[in-house]
Amino acid sequence: MQPLVRIAELEIVPDRLSEYLGFLREEISASIEREDGVLMLHAVSESAAPHRVRLLEVYASQAAYEAHIQTPHFLKYKQATVDMVASLRLIDADPILLAAKPA
Amino acid sequence: MQPLVRIAELEIVPDRLSEYLGFLREEISASIEREDGVLMLHAVSESAAPHRVRLLEVYASQAAYEAHIQTPHFLKYKQATVDMVASLRLIDADPILLAAKPA
Repeated sequence: MQPLVRIAELEIVPDRLSEYLGFLREEISASIEREDGVLMLHAVSESAAPHRVRLLEVYASQAAYEAHIQTPHFLKYKQATVDMVASLRLIDADPILLAAKPA
Repeated sequence: MQPLVRIAELEIVPDRLSEYLGFLREEISASIEREDGVLMLHAVSESAAPHRVRLLEVYASQAAYEAHIQTPHFLKYKQATVDMVASLRLIDADPILLAAKPA
């Protein structure tokens, strides 16, 4: 099975940012804890423009991703934040090397 | 100590890409193996434009980053690839949540 790797670039409505981040953190934690096929969700914000949020996402497979977007925790996040997300760009990617210290 | 988090966006000269990726992989592996202060180096390429390379970098501190860019393996990479990198954009970032399955 081929892992699915993706970058997401979001612009959040600035005065909703803190509220948005609460939903995003909850969704990431639930996905990593409850879904075997969600391997990595790394979210950062640009220091100079914190409402610009970027994610690096790794799923075990296309099927794992399709299951992910049907989970209650993902749907809750998506519905709760629809008015907070000014733009969303998804960029398919391929891993070159994903290297990190053991947790 | 505050971790240093950064995104790098590179455009590689397309006909040097495969050569570039060899140097990048070698540099990432050496940094993670040999430097306590290099916590994460995740490199991906855009599927639709593989010469567009992105990194998510996490160092233990500013001092760890400054030590990193003086190491022999980093200097080798930097010098070897200078003619292969058409553009480099560095974006300071702050972690929202970095979550992954245990390796």
